[in-house]
Amino acid sequence: MGADLLSGVGRAATAQRGETLRFRDAHVEMAHGAGGKATRQLVDGLIAPLLGLPREALVDAAIVHLGQEMVAFTGDSFVVRPLTFPGGSIGELAVNGTVNDLAVSGARPLGLLVTLIVEAGLATSVLEGEMRAVGAAAACAAVAVVGGDTKVVEHGKADGLYITTAGFGRVDPRFTLSSRLVQPGDRVILSGPVGDHGITILLARGDVDLDADLRSDTRSVWPMVDTLGDAAAAGIRWMRDPTRGGIATVLNELARETGFTIAIDEASLPVREEVRGACELLGLDPLHIANEGQFVAVVSPGEADHALDALHGIPGGESAAIVGEVRNDSGGGVLAVSPYGSARVVDMLVGDPLPRIC
Amino acid sequence: MGADLLSGVGRAATAQRGETLRFRDAHVEMAHGAGGKATRQLVDGLIAPLLGLPREALVDAAIVHLGQEMVAFTGDSFVVRPLTFPGGSIGELAVNGTVNDLAVSGARPLGLLVTLIVEAGLATSVLEGEMRAVGAAAACAAVAVVGGDTKVVEHGKADGLYITTAGFGRVDPRFTLSSRLVQPGDRVILSGPVGDHGITILLARGDVDLDADLRSDTRSVWPMVDTLGDAAAAGIRWMRDPTRGGIATVLNELARETGFTIAIDEASLPVREEVRGACELLGLDPLHIANEGQFVAVVSPGEADHALDALHGIPGGESAAIVGEVRNDSGGGVLAVSPYGSARVVDMLVGDPLPRIC
Repeated sequence: MGADLLSGVGRAATAQRGETLRFRDAHVEMAHGAGGKATRQLVDGLIAPLLGLPREALVDAAIVHLGQEMVAFTGDSFVVRPLTFPGGSIGELAVNGTVNDLAVSGARPLGLLVTLIVEAGLATSVLEGEMRAVGAAAACAAVAVVGGDTKVVEHGKADGLYITTAGFGRVDPRFTLSSRLVQPGDRVILSGPVGDHGITILLARGDVDLDADLRSDTRSVWPMVDTLGDAAAAGIRWMRDPTRGGIATVLNELARETGFTIAIDEASLPVREEVRGACELLGLDPLHIANEGQFVAVVSPGEADHALDALHGIPGGESAAIVGEVRNDSGGGVLAVSPYGSARVVDMLVGDPLPRIC
Repeated sequence: MGADLLSGVGRAATAQRGETLRFRDAHVEMAHGAGGKATRQLVDGLIAPLLGLPREALVDAAIVHLGQEMVAFTGDSFVVRPLTFPGGSIGELAVNGTVNDLAVSGARPLGLLVTLIVEAGLATSVLEGEMRAVGAAAACAAVAVVGGDTKVVEHGKADGLYITTAGFGRVDPRFTLSSRLVQPGDRVILSGPVGDHGITILLARGDVDLDADLRSDTRSVWPMVDTLGDAAAAGIRWMRDPTRGGIATVLNELARETGFTIAIDEASLPVREEVRGACELLGLDPLHIANEGQFVAVVSPGEADHALDALHGIPGGESAAIVGEVRNDSGGGVLAVSPYGSARVVDMLVGDPLPRIC
């Protein structure tokens, strides 16, 4: 994956001359930032070809060979609203989001650059709180903040604070990950309950009249990935963190890349009652809701039980579950199979029911 | 420099407990983003201690040892207004700004992550233009775009488009750079005319009734730095790119770090007539104006002429000049010496006469 990313120099210029852009919308809208179908259209249809981004770069992290080292790089902007919410804040999210993109790429997170766009008039106490959150989350994830940048824009030209983090890590030789390795019969493991982050943000905005004892799941998933590396690395084929667009979106991307069907056993899906209740009231599918401390792994059938046992044995992995399997059905896509045996097609997120979730 | 940056893990947590924060302003204001004295107070007094950033990380790029490799990392957000201006646009700036931070750290730029915060409602044609600008600038600077991220915020919550770039490069073994190597008698070389970028942005906003045939100097300085590496690497002690806050700010930082005086010979300073005229009319000092395609190098007296000849010999380096020298005067700071021998103290930028210049 991405072994020759650096040979991409000049690819941008070539793409700019040769390629017809497939993105046809006249304006960028909120849905283009939601991580679902519209984001994919914008990135695949305009941004990636013009920047010369190879297909394999459009995953969580880019892997680059530097001499004898294989280094993973990833970057994310965080624009979550509100800035703080039960269980976390933009500062923790900015650390954990980038750390997790490295982790699910099979790279041990090492360092971060933290770049701020601050709205003039922001109270210093708010900035101080977020810098404490970044520092604490970085210490907790055992990554060093090695640099950054601060810009200020006029009052009204940002929404308090936007944080961009870029992270680097060392590719862990225990892992060989690629959607190309995924086989029919492989199991889909989910690290914990779905939807906690997204529903927490929704409730924190106060737009809906619901009260629930929920917290964002924001955390580094590296300790769990590290555990899998010891217990079952040879069986781990592919990992992703289901943030914007949720489980449905990352599994649809996997289905598209492999051509296989991903069948989810709905009864086995860990979902808290509060999340299930909010989703039912609001007409949302938990599979579309963002998570900030979970990952999905596709594991060979022979190693799936080992992997699950290992996750159950470490703090934070107690509710990990095998939630589905890869099938060689015709059609591909993602199916959710109910306890009664009926199946529904689960599409990628369309539109943006929960804007600015991360 | 920065050899053990990664040992910074845990330093944030320590700093958060132990350190008294010296930043006392109640709110963040525009001047805190201008790159001058207020930015330094915010970064040194609040952000750096809370993130556990070591002093040596507060330069253009962080240098990290990964196995046998020395890798430089840097990140910058770009919020320039307007998005396009004579000679460039935010897309080119975002590439060249980050490439130049690597170059003046003595690292060959290799790759970039490009992260977008887009305001909902932005015309696709504008985004397309900027992605073309990023792709073309990256190709021109011979760096690959290896990944990125796209977020969208509501109309009115950004100013069209903010771009954050994170870059990495390989530290070039020809260079050993540190302010600790700077000696009295060393010469200060400037790569070209000062102030073109800042004054171009000012005029592009249309706030002042001035007309001048000026273009931003945005470009990669790596070809010039590379030339210096061949011609005079052993004599190059220190380099910086004088962006926000201008020449005055980077030389004041050097004076503070070394304790020496930096004396600038005003007559030798390359300044275009249009820039000088605009500065005189508006009461600005060209030494405070941002540049986006220049660098300042401190060079040993024995190598300064070699270095200058080499720069004069390559495209874009024709107007490079020796503009000053390092002196062991009492007092330190930066002095501008007029053709008549009188000297004035040149302070760091205070306030923000030209907001959102990059």
